[in-house]
Amino acid sequence: MIRAGIIGGSGYAGGELIRLLNAHPQVEIIFATSRAKMGEYIYQSHPNLRKQINLTFVSPEEISEVDVLFLATPHGQAQKEIEKYAALAGKIVDLSADFRLKDPAAYKKWYGEDHKAPEWLGKFVYGLPEIHREELKTATYASGVGCNATATNLALLPLVKAGLIDLQQNIFVEIKVGSSEGGAEGNPGSHHPERSNVIRTFSAYGHRHTAEVIQELGLVNATLTMTSVDLVRGALATAHAFVKPGVTPKELWKAYRALSNENPFIRVVKEQRGVYRVPEPKILAGSNYADISFDLDMDNHHVVTICAIDNLMKGAAGSAVQCMNLMFGLEETLGLEFSGLHPI
Amino acid sequence: MIRAGIIGGSGYAGGELIRLLNAHPQVEIIFATSRAKMGEYIYQSHPNLRKQINLTFVSPEEISEVDVLFLATPHGQAQKEIEKYAALAGKIVDLSADFRLKDPAAYKKWYGEDHKAPEWLGKFVYGLPEIHREELKTATYASGVGCNATATNLALLPLVKAGLIDLQQNIFVEIKVGSSEGGAEGNPGSHHPERSNVIRTFSAYGHRHTAEVIQELGLVNATLTMTSVDLVRGALATAHAFVKPGVTPKELWKAYRALSNENPFIRVVKEQRGVYRVPEPKILAGSNYADISFDLDMDNHHVVTICAIDNLMKGAAGSAVQCMNLMFGLEETLGLEFSGLHPI
Amino acid sequence: MIRAGIIGGSGYAGGELIRLLNAHPQVEIIFATSRAKMGEYIYQSHPNLRKQINLTFVSPEEISEVDVLFLATPHGQAQKEIEKYAALAGKIVDLSADFRLKDPAAYKKWYGEDHKAPEWLGKFVYGLPEIHREELKTATYASGVGCNATATNLALLPLVKAGLIDLQQNIFVEIKVGSSEGGAEGNPGSHHPERSNVIRTFSAYGHRHTAEVIQELGLVNATLTMTSVDLVRGALATAHAFVKPGVTPKELWKAYRALSNENPFIRVVKEQRGVYRVPEPKILAGSNYADISFDLDMDNHHVVTICAIDNLMKGAAGSAVQCMNLMFGLEETLGLEFSGLHPI
Amino acid sequence: MIRAGIIGGSGYAGGELIRLLNAHPQVEIIFATSRAKMGEYIYQSHPNLRKQINLTFVSPEEISEVDVLFLATPHGQAQKEIEKYAALAGKIVDLSADFRLKDPAAYKKWYGEDHKAPEWLGKFVYGLPEIHREELKTATYASGVGCNATATNLALLPLVKAGLIDLQQNIFVEIKVGSSEGGAEGNPGSHHPERSNVIRTFSAYGHRHTAEVIQELGLVNATLTMTSVDLVRGALATAHAFVKPGVTPKELWKAYRALSNENPFIRVVKEQRGVYRVPEPKILAGSNYADISFDLDMDNHHVVTICAIDNLMKGAAGSAVQCMNLMFGLEETLGLEFSGLHPI
Repeated sequence: MIRAGIIGGSGYAGGELIRLLNAHPQVEIIFATSRAKMGEYIYQSHPNLRKQINLTFVSPEEISEVDVLFLATPHGQAQKEIEKYAALAGKIVDLSADFRLKDPAAYKKWYGEDHKAPEWLGKFVYGLPEIHREELKTATYASGVGCNATATNLALLPLVKAGLIDLQQNIFVEIKVGSSEGGAEGNPGSHHPERSNVIRTFSAYGHRHTAEVIQELGLVNATLTMTSVDLVRGALATAHAFVKPGVTPKELWKAYRALSNENPFIRVVKEQRGVYRVPEPKILAGSNYADISFDLDMDNHHVVTICAIDNLMKGAAGSAVQCMNLMFGLEETLGLEFSGLHPI
Repeated sequence: MIRAGIIGGSGYAGGELIRLLNAHPQVEIIFATSRAKMGEYIYQSHPNLRKQINLTFVSPEEISEVDVLFLATPHGQAQKEIEKYAALAGKIVDLSADFRLKDPAAYKKWYGEDHKAPEWLGKFVYGLPEIHREELKTATYASGVGCNATATNLALLPLVKAGLIDLQQNIFVEIKVGSSEGGAEGNPGSHHPERSNVIRTFSAYGHRHTAEVIQELGLVNATLTMTSVDLVRGALATAHAFVKPGVTPKELWKAYRALSNENPFIRVVKEQRGVYRVPEPKILAGSNYADISFDLDMDNHHVVTICAIDNLMKGAAGSAVQCMNLMFGLEETLGLEFSGLHPI
Repeated sequence: MIRAGIIGGSGYAGGELIRLLNAHPQVEIIFATSRAKMGEYIYQSHPNLRKQINLTFVSPEEISEVDVLFLATPHGQAQKEIEKYAALAGKIVDLSADFRLKDPAAYKKWYGEDHKAPEWLGKFVYGLPEIHREELKTATYASGVGCNATATNLALLPLVKAGLIDLQQNIFVEIKVGSSEGGAEGNPGSHHPERSNVIRTFSAYGHRHTAEVIQELGLVNATLTMTSVDLVRGALATAHAFVKPGVTPKELWKAYRALSNENPFIRVVKEQRGVYRVPEPKILAGSNYADISFDLDMDNHHVVTICAIDNLMKGAAGSAVQCMNLMFGLEETLGLEFSGLHPI
Repeated sequence: MIRAGIIGGSGYAGGELIRLLNAHPQVEIIFATSRAKMGEYIYQSHPNLRKQINLTFVSPEEISEVDVLFLATPHGQAQKEIEKYAALAGKIVDLSADFRLKDPAAYKKWYGEDHKAPEWLGKFVYGLPEIHREELKTATYASGVGCNATATNLALLPLVKAGLIDLQQNIFVEIKVGSSEGGAEGNPGSHHPERSNVIRTFSAYGHRHTAEVIQELGLVNATLTMTSVDLVRGALATAHAFVKPGVTPKELWKAYRALSNENPFIRVVKEQRGVYRVPEPKILAGSNYADISFDLDMDNHHVVTICAIDNLMKGAAGSAVQCMNLMFGLEETLGLEFSGLHPI
């Protein structure tokens, strides 16, 4: 059994981690920390876990050695404590934004401040198995992934891998997200009467996750635009790009099917009939799947690619557990078999 | 023109008051106060009013004389300042719970503390025109109404007026409410990911609005049970009572139709076909209607009566404006003609 | 491996059955039928199952022998074909209403027509393990459970078992339900613009599931009132009953805890703090838990008991698989371990 | 009083027309037709109008002469009957898509069939007052507007009028819409359990409303992409375009403010603080406002423009009544003063 600890277990990603690890056949949770909820039962914060796990949250100061440490702390904290954590755990999976970018200059550009542990940036493998599977198998440290970056990267990865995309042209990615993306702490805009029924474009350009798209796919012309909609879990990226002249739907099919064939959690959804013809996040709640698709307007070489994920799963805790599985030589899908629900 | 002032304009009921009074053909808003939003444009708090009203919120200390003062302050404040307010305004309509109950002992029982201005309790007319229309026409001071009390009172009023109810038996009232009832201030339970999709029975018995049902209808055996559902505006009361032996559906029809005939904002909804056969709050958003109905199980003398309202309108600001109309000798429906929307 | 067949796999309960059985470590799905979707991939109807199951729906005429047959057909069909099904399968679990009631007269009273196979009614065990666990262990045939009946029965079962309830008094059960309870076929009232945001009391009394409450708990004075709210999955029963004079909260705690201790899927939720203090269906989506609670108004001996379930799980497919586990001597919780999600 | 008739009153746009015209101080509704609901009270289809209007739907064959006829029939019907309607009414406002396009070839391209009355196309003024106010003042016939076209046109109109846009570059418009846009007739995809919680990109390119953007703004490079979200009323267009080199935020402010100043229903929403900083359709339900905004990424000359509307109001019935006001020399805003609600 892999002995696991979780730093920052009372947030939403932390809660999903606890849920997944607690049900994982090869993992034993040794502790989960929460400064705010210290001493309280985990199931008081994550009521779905009542009768499933009987631990209480402990102080981050009381942690002990484990085989793997998951960091689900707010942005900026992991980089301050990384030496301490590395001394306690053979392997680390960080869900925050702290170790996603390789380049300290990029970090400063997008996050507005110097990185506190720049020498550690190179030690982390970016935690998206669909891009870094082989490196993750031997990795000691894996970073988290931005949920919006993940939806974007998986929507466009087939085009990039197959060299179909016209890199000179601009790429606009419209991402619609549910409210859980904002985290477990409320704010005036998350108050139910204000947040219900919204279509709220809260970031027109310049979203930090853009940095992960540039780093991982090299798409320097990509712009991410964020819109909140009335949903708790889920993110949908609709990306507008241009293919090179002469690219056919057949080539796109080949590229998208290839990604699906090579990756257990990637599905192509492109149906001619029925209600569910395109990727939709609603049926992915709780699942680690990323559903992808494309639509080619041949007259204009304009391709619309789509990716739907559960932002807390494939966009956070699910990818983190998938990384752990790879890092420990386990079956990649272990503990991540839940299919999602229909209807929901 | 009636010169009106609003104390406490940045909350939800205050915002509705401003919307209604601003569009009212016989009213001019002189000021609206907000300690928290002082100096800001009203439309920054109530964005629907952009381009409709150009006032900023003023401090409660800066107010001047007006013909009518509406108090939309949090519970407990109006009673502390009532002398001051009465000196400034010829008439007062208080939307809070401070002057609803006539009996200081009842106030203490339900609100847990002594009333600060018990001598004023008797000066206020309870602000539900369907019960106190004639008194309101000559009133100087009108209280607000509890939204849940109003849904309950209007569901049961026809039975009580017609003497059909068996007063010895218990009455259970199940009230389902939207999130705006909790007010404009957020809390952990109102955070969208936690408040969405809920069916949350947050008060099994002992709700304070029970006091208004007892006072207004004399139903000492009534229990109100509160359940939050996923909706912003609206409250539905489903009341379970017993009719006296021998009471027929015809008598109930007569009682419910009578209330509808006597009151411009009461409608009986009891259809045999179509989608909208029973009262539903969703189509009442923004309207001052109270839709009522009943269903009689003759085998058991058990009657289920229903009332749907918009908690911010008929349950708060709408009834307040209706009271003002009566108090100033205006047409009762003036400024309250909006029908609600379908679909919504 | 248990070889299983599903009759009627394209509806919502059928879809959940397929999801559960496909992931069940001791079951192999041999076929699932659907007259309407014959020849189509199951994942076209249940898109969450894409890449999880590759079967197509077959005609009900093409079915073969299996160890267990699940019937998820519309009401009234199973009773016509029961002889045929019994010839094909060693054991049968019927999810429809056809074999829930033991008494043909009760069936006629509540369903309005004579039962087509009354001699079979006695052969079925009512499929709620929390009441009939021991019989189910040796049963050949198990019935389904009504979702609303289940929420009601589990809310009141502790009171009944402990003999705390005053059986002379009326019991009012207010049940709030999501839209999946209406099944996969649309109607004018389920059209999204009409069904969204509703609080719609569609049945004041006389709901058919009342028959199951009377049969299983002997509560002849129970009335079920049904209200639709804006949610897809989930049902909450709030039951109003009276306890015998002198009954204390301590006795209620004991009764509710006992049910939880004896049953793996029963949880008592009665917290003094936090957001999730009472049972709520939203966190149960996909899980087989029934969360129960109570609140005692000692002044009136009035008790409010609450039960939250996922209507498609504990109220349908989940209980059916739980029955199968018992009937085949497996661990009762096998294949039903999913905890539900938070947030959702 | 203007005597008005409505053809096709049982749909959603028809219902809104009836609501608006019934409350309009200068209009008397003479009839509303509905083949499906003939003989039924209008309030049975549009329950918000109970106690507001007591007419029943009549057959389209029974109509008489009126001053103005509103056509709210399904696409393709108005063009077949236009001669008949013109003989009955001095003025016509058509809400359907039949007379929006001036060019029969464009009609054939986007609607896939020959127009049945091409000689009438030139007689209609496109019914968006923000573009055609002067022509509408003398028009006999006004067309409807596509709701998605309207959101797009108003998002981009300031840029086009001010000549700031780089017309050589592609324009991508992402439109998120509520379920009422699909009309009052249900389909498998509008069934509540399937339609709730969706983010469903149902049209990647080629939407018919594109034709209205090309015709009205000359933007031949515009692509509209449609995504359904969980909301009943409302549409938000987020348009991505490029400004000419050197264009500054100041010029954009000027262009957007100008449109707002010239048009009573246009508001610029671009706040630095508060919850409502950008246009959002939720607060526009029932109102005729179009809220617009922009965001300029100066590094890339990329401008994101936004427009929020109520698709049934500014995108349909509201604009139609606004046209009528202009055509009859009335105050443009008459009967359209409702502000929308907050919260909702």
